[in-house]
Order: sequence, then structure tokens, then C-alpha cells
Amino acid sequence: MYIENINAPADVKKLNEEQLAVLATEIREALLTKLSRHGGHFGPNFGMVEATIALHYVFESPKDKLVFDVSHQTYPHKMLTGRKDAFLYEERYDDVSGYSNPKESEHDHFTVGHTSTSISLACGLAKARDLKGEDGNVIAIIGDGSLSGGEALEGLDFAAELHGNLIIVVNDNDMSIAENHGGLYGNLKLLRETDGKAACNLFRAMGLEYLFVGAGNNIHDLIAGFQQVKDSKAPVVVHICTQKGKGYAPAQAHKERWHFSGPFDIATGKPLYDFGEEDYSSVTAEYLLQQMKKDQKIVAITSATPTVLGFTEDKRKQAGKQFVDVGIAEETAVALASGIAAGGGKPVYGVYSTFIQRAFDQLSQDLCINGNPATIVTFGASVYGMNDITHLGIYDIPMMANIPNLVYMAPTTKEEYLAMLAWSIGQTDHPVAIRVPGGQMVSEGKTVTKDFGQLNTYEVTQTGGRIAIIGLGTFYALGQGAAECIEQKTGIRSTVINPYYITGLDENLLQELKKEHDIVVTLEDGILDGGFGEKIARFYGASAVKVLNFGLKKEFLDRYDTDEILKKNHLTVEQVAEDILKLL
Amino acid sequence: MYIENINAPADVKKLNEEQLAVLATEIREALLTKLSRHGGHFGPNFGMVEATIALHYVFESPKDKLVFDVSHQTYPHKMLTGRKDAFLYEERYDDVSGYSNPKESEHDHFTVGHTSTSISLACGLAKARDLKGEDGNVIAIIGDGSLSGGEALEGLDFAAELHGNLIIVVNDNDMSIAENHGGLYGNLKLLRETDGKAACNLFRAMGLEYLFVGAGNNIHDLIAGFQQVKDSKAPVVVHICTQKGKGYAPAQAHKERWHFSGPFDIATGKPLYDFGEEDYSSVTAEYLLQQMKKDQKIVAITSATPTVLGFTEDKRKQAGKQFVDVGIAEETAVALASGIAAGGGKPVYGVYSTFIQRAFDQLSQDLCINGNPATIVTFGASVYGMNDITHLGIYDIPMMANIPNLVYMAPTTKEEYLAMLAWSIGQTDHPVAIRVPGGQMVSEGKTVTKDFGQLNTYEVTQTGGRIAIIGLGTFYALGQGAAECIEQKTGIRSTVINPYYITGLDENLLQELKKEHDIVVTLEDGILDGGFGEKIARFYGASAVKVLNFGLKKEFLDRYDTDEILKKNHLTVEQVAEDILKLL
Repeated sequence: MYIENINAPADVKKLNEEQLAVLATEIREALLTKLSRHGGHFGPNFGMVEATIALHYVFESPKDKLVFDVSHQTYPHKMLTGRKDAFLYEERYDDVSGYSNPKESEHDHFTVGHTSTSISLACGLAKARDLKGEDGNVIAIIGDGSLSGGEALEGLDFAAELHGNLIIVVNDNDMSIAENHGGLYGNLKLLRETDGKAACNLFRAMGLEYLFVGAGNNIHDLIAGFQQVKDSKAPVVVHICTQKGKGYAPAQAHKERWHFSGPFDIATGKPLYDFGEEDYSSVTAEYLLQQMKKDQKIVAITSATPTVLGFTEDKRKQAGKQFVDVGIAEETAVALASGIAAGGGKPVYGVYSTFIQRAFDQLSQDLCINGNPATIVTFGASVYGMNDITHLGIYDIPMMANIPNLVYMAPTTKEEYLAMLAWSIGQTDHPVAIRVPGGQMVSEGKTVTKDFGQLNTYEVTQTGGRIAIIGLGTFYALGQGAAECIEQKTGIRSTVINPYYITGLDENLLQELKKEHDIVVTLEDGILDGGFGEKIARFYGASAVKVLNFGLKKEFLDRYDTDEILKKNHLTVEQVAEDILKLL
Repeated sequence: MYIENINAPADVKKLNEEQLAVLATEIREALLTKLSRHGGHFGPNFGMVEATIALHYVFESPKDKLVFDVSHQTYPHKMLTGRKDAFLYEERYDDVSGYSNPKESEHDHFTVGHTSTSISLACGLAKARDLKGEDGNVIAIIGDGSLSGGEALEGLDFAAELHGNLIIVVNDNDMSIAENHGGLYGNLKLLRETDGKAACNLFRAMGLEYLFVGAGNNIHDLIAGFQQVKDSKAPVVVHICTQKGKGYAPAQAHKERWHFSGPFDIATGKPLYDFGEEDYSSVTAEYLLQQMKKDQKIVAITSATPTVLGFTEDKRKQAGKQFVDVGIAEETAVALASGIAAGGGKPVYGVYSTFIQRAFDQLSQDLCINGNPATIVTFGASVYGMNDITHLGIYDIPMMANIPNLVYMAPTTKEEYLAMLAWSIGQTDHPVAIRVPGGQMVSEGKTVTKDFGQLNTYEVTQTGGRIAIIGLGTFYALGQGAAECIEQKTGIRSTVINPYYITGLDENLLQELKKEHDIVVTLEDGILDGGFGEKIARFYGASAVKVLNFGLKKEFLDRYDTDEILKKNHLTVEQVAEDILKLL
């Protein structure tokens, strides 16, 4: 096998085109085996095999710098830059992350996991090169799906200002995670259909030179194209047309399903594990579809991740014009929601905690200053969420809960979540966000009767004395557990509180607690800095009440073991109970 | 005068074209008088007089909905929608805000002050209209300068997805606040030069229909153009070419200087008040220009507000390629800075507190996860900063200081600021942000010898007992004042501390304070929620030390009187001292 002898890009250059084609086959075989056992991003990597080989054949990495957008298509790049073993040998599968990673290799320049950043980052590398009077190519590699993001479009616009070498490889596979949405995709189609010759050209309109390579899975054509732009003195776009999932029939046929896959059976493509039971995503879609039938003004919004809201292809069809995918464009998603609410519609924007970060200013300016009653549902906002450093869901409380006018809520069960969603859709007074709990969905079957319009009213779920435990969202159960543990150990019955609201204090209740309690404890499923617990600590700062805040340390974690991290942060039932008792 | 009889858009429709031209002259005269006495946005409003008249002549506001981007060009719109008195009569000048404002009029749909939001917001209004089965036009009005912002480009791309009425008026005056930067401006130029006939067309590439109106200050042509697109069934761009500052010679000649103006002498255009003394902006440019000469790797970055860094036109020329204006594109500015730092350059990005909000995810993902040593300087981050609801600088601490890996610093004087800047540019370990103090620049002439590389080491500037006062940044002086006041009243000498760092605690010092202090006080020039003081409150939560946090309430303020707001938030020297003594 050729792949076994590839230890650096220099080894790629030793092969002839025929051998490179064999290498491509070997890479796909290794990927298929690894992903069938281990899971990972499938379609993006299968589509980029030839282009990655051609890039390393033509350019001189690391002197020439490759910046992969979102970087979930970097598996072939890793295989060609000294990290092949992590794809060839099962015991080494976890040696590498799923994204580009400067800690792994000098051929990676940024830790990247969000889309649409490559062009602007590459502009920075190019500018540094020019300031230092050096030479070399800087190459951003960006998928068509990522182009709709604001940062990518800003970068496309800014690139022309560099007046120096910058190569932007647009990997056009005519797909985002789901289908593409946005007017620019019509232009990409036009360019594909005219072999890049159409006069109306988005990239040229942005001031960039342009080269079309139709056969984006043909190594020969790719090499010729990259050689043509190598050492270009001006920013240039190379538009290559690839096939997502290329080389594995099920992935070519069902591109959305195969964007990312868990372990599967190679022969049939069927997943090895069935996550068939209902979860917060599926109950969201079910609930919204029901309500949409009764109310034409309800509209669900996604920014290119429709299934986070449970809207699989069939459900999107059912919703019709009451479902909007803005493409990868979180800023527009929030502004759109605000505009719809201002116009009397009832928008529900579902988004991962890690991606709502991309719309801070829109939350503040477009939505909250205007006080429009849009609903945002944040998913994966938990230590139990995604655990890659670029996809963590533990920072949204400081980011969102300190924006004035926003009502950010934390349900603890399915029933609370749906009741909050119903209340939020029905009301017209506040922008509302709901933080879907992490971990397994909890359903108690209990009817929730609380009037959520009475903002910042917490609920005492167990009355006790000396100790009051306020458990927010996912960590309410941890608080309950600690209370039980303390009662078993000491007979002291703690007061237990479900606060429901992240954005405000129930000052009456907190005041009242002073009478019979010495210690108030907070627990939150996110970082402590700027979070919920600190507001409680401030409230009691001048009083005799002692406050203990439990939550996560402010740090960037990466591919962590959840139990280990919980333990390290004193977040097991026993640790919480012990820490409280120490203070008593 | 016609303007005196314009109480609603219906009154505009009664005039013929000749009368409308007179109306335009009257509007300019009123604007000139008001702005010469009161100050405000000059160039944008003078350029948009005819277009605004034509819009109200053709469309039926408020049923047809006008959404002005950034909305600092809405003075003529306000004059035509029942708010003329605020421009005609000096005693009523302050009746209206400088931005669109739904609280003022049914003809305003959003409170807007940041750029690049209009298209996405208008998409929301259009979608709501379509969901409700209503009709009517939705019109976004956006300047060419705002087009480079990510949200605007996202919106342009998404608009085609609406498949319904949406009119995007692109007001092309070939300027941002300063000159435009970005490749798309070449395309606008090409379109201007070809009367909109060039085949390569950014807007068509985004899937939009397109109409060119070259004479954007000609009422006749504008009316004809708007009539042509009225009730369009598809999203369409109307590209109008206007002259910024039209009708006042100094403003036409010096567009950057006249984007916004304080009170001035109409005959000469000279400002009535001279703010000639040095400020944090001018010392920044002075310092950076000095350093740039010694080090080619230093580069200053702005996102379309070069003078916030002190880089007036002459200084930009001096800096040459060591000054980069990315245009209105804060996301790209942060990513660029990260990329430059990754490539070994030394970027310094200067930005208003209110605008760095537009790059939260880039701070977190592009910069801080990667730990690249870029420097960000935030200006106007203070209660003493801009006081329009859309431009407040009191939210950046919760936003930035809770991002892992960022070192966010708060100098209290010019000398500390420059020492921090020097340290930050010289080091290669951390992404650093520096929060320039608000209010008058304080200069003590003292040499700062502190090693800022010893992160999170606070400085005790006065040793005392019982009370410790930690005064952050601008509010350090307030802390000092309170300490003096307390000493005068009670003889108790407080410990006074300059913490320097917003992002971390000096745990050793805080621990040490417990011995001789009963009360620890924090003061910060920003909202309390998610801020600096709450971290201190959490630290002492389980101890006997009492903590008092001073700062601003989490709320959106608007056009406030600073003294009044300080008083309301218990932030005068006397109030702080009293509150502390009450607790003693």
C-alpha cells in the first residue's frame, strides 16, 4: 500500500498520477473502515480525497499554509501529514481529533470547528507573511455550505484588499449539512453549468480572480488547476466541483444522512446503534408541527442544522413555509426571528449552544433592545453535550444571560420544557430563550401549571432548613441528589429549589431564605464565571448567608470524559454533599 | 414652507415634483441649522434627502415598511413622518433620537444603531407578512459601507429564499465612515460606470433582481425607479447613487470629517468646540506609529472606524501597509488579527466596546481557543461613553471576560494603558484585550514598572484595614475617593487595590485580605451581571468576609444623563462611602 509509506507531504510528491489514484482508493478504504467502527464526518472527507492529495502534491506544506474551513474534512489531510496511523490502526483511532489541530502537526495552523472562518484566518496568515517580507502560498479551503456565513462573506470581500497571494479553494459539492439555502447557490449552479464561464460570478464580483475545475474528484485536473494558481500574486478562487460522499454508494445517495455518521455496517450502511427513542429534538418537532396546524403564524427556523429541532426531511415537508432554513447564517437567523416577531409572527429558532455564540450582537441589538417576542431554543448546552473544544455548550449562560431584556429559562424535564415553549410562543412581551437540558431526557409525566409570565419566580420543591439548594436546569437532579445524601448522612432536610429562570433573581424568595438558612448552594451546568450562581453570591454578599457555587471552571476543555470532568469540578452527588457539609 | 405642512407621508404625496424639489431644499436647510447647533450625523442625511422623499411619495408607510440600516440617515424620514418639529424648532431638538425608534412613530419598525442588520430584519417582516397572508412592500435601505458586514451579506444571500416581495435600496455614496474597503466596492464602481449594465453583478450573483438608478439625488428618477419595483413579487435591489453630504460644500469635499459632526459654524464649516487635547485615541496612534518604525511586524487594524485608534488620514498614510481597514467587518477583523498573530505578526485591533459585540464567536473560536497573541483595544467601554441605547459600552465585561484564555486588562491611567499595550505587543503567550478607561484621560506621569506577564496580580496602592476597596479601570478613582471619604468621616483607613486584570482573581491577595478585612468592595464601570465583582463575591461566598459590588444595573439605558445614572446606581463617592459604612 502506498499510504503506509506516506509520512509527510514529500512522500506524496514521489508518486505519479496513476499511483496517486491508487492512493485515493486506499485512503477511502481506510476511512470507510475507521468510520464504520468509530463514527465521524463522512461525506465531507470522502468528497475531498483527491483534492487533498492534489493540494499536497502541488503545494509545499507547511511553508505553504492550508487552512481548512470548519475542518471536519481534514481526515485525508491528516493521513498525508504524518498522522496516517490514526486512520489505519484501530488502537490508534483516538490519537487525532476530528478537526485541524496545531498541537498535532505543523501542517495545521488553527484549531477550527465552526464554519466560515477560513478565509479571514488565511488573510491573517497572508498579511503576516507580507509584513515579514516572506513568500509562500496561503490556501483557504472552504465548502459551498460554509460560504453563506457572514464571516466567510466578509472574508471573500476583504481578500481582494490584500493585493497579494491568497488562494481560496471553494469545494462545491452542492450541499451544506442538509441542502443549501441562499441566493448565491444559484450562482454556483450557473457556474457549474457553464464550466465557470458565466459572466455573472460572485467571486469576480468580490474582486477576486477565478478558476473553474469541474472535475473536482479528478486528480489530474486538480493538479493542473492548483499548479496554475500556485504563487499567484493576487487573491484567486479555485472553484472545484466535488461529490460529497464520493466512493460509497449509500453516502452518495443520501448526503444529509451521511454528512456525519456513527458506527455502521459497511455492507448495508445501517447504523450499528439505534437511538430511536424520543429526545428533546423529536419532541420539539412533534410539538411544533401540532401547533403549526392550528396557527399559521408559527414558524420554525434553523441555521443549517434542521434536525436539532427534530425537523428531518419529511417533517420539513410537512411544515412547508412554516419551516425556514437560512443556511449557515446564525446572525440572519436571529435577525429574521426578531423581524418575524415584530411583524406579528411566532418564530422559534432552534440552535446549538456553541453556534448561538455567532449571533451575540444580533441577540443584543436586533432582538433584545427591540424586545421582540421571538423564541430561541438552545440545544447541547451542557457538559453532556458535544465535547470537542470547538463545540462545547458550557459558555452560553455568561454570554446570553447577561443581555438585558432576554428571559433565559432552564427547564429540568420534558414537561417543563414544553410548557415553557408553549408559554413563550403564546406571549408577546419578551424575547425568550430556553436552555434544553443535557443528558438523557427526563420525563415525569407531571402536568406543569406554573405561570411563566411571572418572571423570576422560583419554585421551592422541598422545604427544609439550614441548607437551600438551587439546582438550575440539568443540574437540578444533582441538587436533589445532594439533598438526599445530606439527609441520609445527617438527618438535615435541605430546602430544594428549581429556579426556572437564568436571567433574574427571585429576590423575595432569596430574602426569605435568610431566615432559616445558613447556606445557599447553586448548581449550574456551565462555567461558573459570569454565570447564574455568581448572581446569587452577589445577592448574599453583604449578608451572613454563606454561598457555595457549583459549576464548571472557565477553561476550554477538549474531548473529555464527562465523569472525569464532573469529578474534577466537584460535581458528583457525594462531592457536592461533602462540600456543603464541610461548610455547615 | 412645505415642510411645515408635512405631518405624515400622505402630505408628501400631495406635492408635485417641483414642490418636492423645494421640500428637499427646506429639509436640507433645517438639517443644516439643527446640526450646526446640535451636532449629529451629517453626510448620510444630506445624501438621502431626495431618496427619502421619493420613498414616501411612492410607498404607503406604515403599511409598506421602511427598514433603515444603521438608521443614522433617518432624519429626513423623521421629518416626513410627523416629527418635523424636532428639526425645525431648537427647543424641540431633543424630542427625537438620532436613530429609528418604534417608540417615536409607527413608521419606525426597529430600534437600530449597528450597521448591516436591515436586510435580515426586513426579511423577517416580509416573512411575517407572508405567513399572515397579507400584502404590502417591505423595503430595506442600506448604505454601501454597511454591505461589507457579515450580517448584511448573509441577508443579501438569504433574501432570494423568500420568493416574495422585498425591496433592497442600496444607497451607494462610495463611502463608509472613511473610504470603503473590500472587493465588492470594485463591483459597485463597475456598476456605476456601466449604468448598472455590467454582466458581473454582485446582487444578481446573490439571486436578486436588480435596478440601477444613477441619479440618486434626482427625485424624478428615484420616483420612477421605486414605482417600477413597487409590489414586486420577487426580492429586488434598487442601486441608487447618491452624494454623501450633498448640498453643503464642506461636507461634499471632506466626506470622512462630515460623516458625523459636532456643532459648527455654517459659513466656514469650522467646529465650534475644539477637542484638541490628547486623548486615548491620539496617544494610541502616536505610540503605535513610533513602534511600527522599529518593528515591521506591528500592524494596526480597524473595522471602518480608524480614528478610534487615532489613525486620521495622514497617520494612515504614515503607517502604510502596517495599517489595515477591513471595512465594517468586525468578525473578519478579529479573525485577521488571530491569523496575523499565528503567522508571527503583531496585530492591534482597536474597536468600540459596542462593536466588538459583533465578534463574540471570533473572539472565542478564532482567537482564544487558538491562544494567539493578538491585542484588542476596546474604546468607549464606560458609562462615560456613547449614550444611545444602541451604542452603550457597559456590556463588554460579561461578554469578553468570561471567555477562557483571554487576558482582559483594565488600566486606570495613560501610563498604565501604554505599558499594557507595550507588554501585550511584546508577548507571545496570550490573546490580550485592553479596556481603555472612560471619561477624561488621566495622566500621572508615573513610570509603570509592573510585569504584566505575572497574570492576575493585583496591586495594593494603599494599605489599611477592615475595608478593602478594589476599583477596576475607570472606577479606580471612585474607589480612591470613597476611601478618602471614609477616612475623613471615620478615621478608618481602607486598603485600596488596583486589580489591573478583569479576567482572573489574585487569589493569594484575596485570601490574605481575609485576615484584616471585614468588607471587600468592588467597583466596575459596566453592568454588574456577569461582571468582575461577582467573581469576587463568589470567591468570598463561603467566608465571613462581606462583599459589596458596585456597578451598573443590567438594563438598556438610552440617552441618559451620566450623573443621574451614576446616582441611581449608587455610584457617587458619597454613596459608595455611605453604603460601605452602613455595612461596617
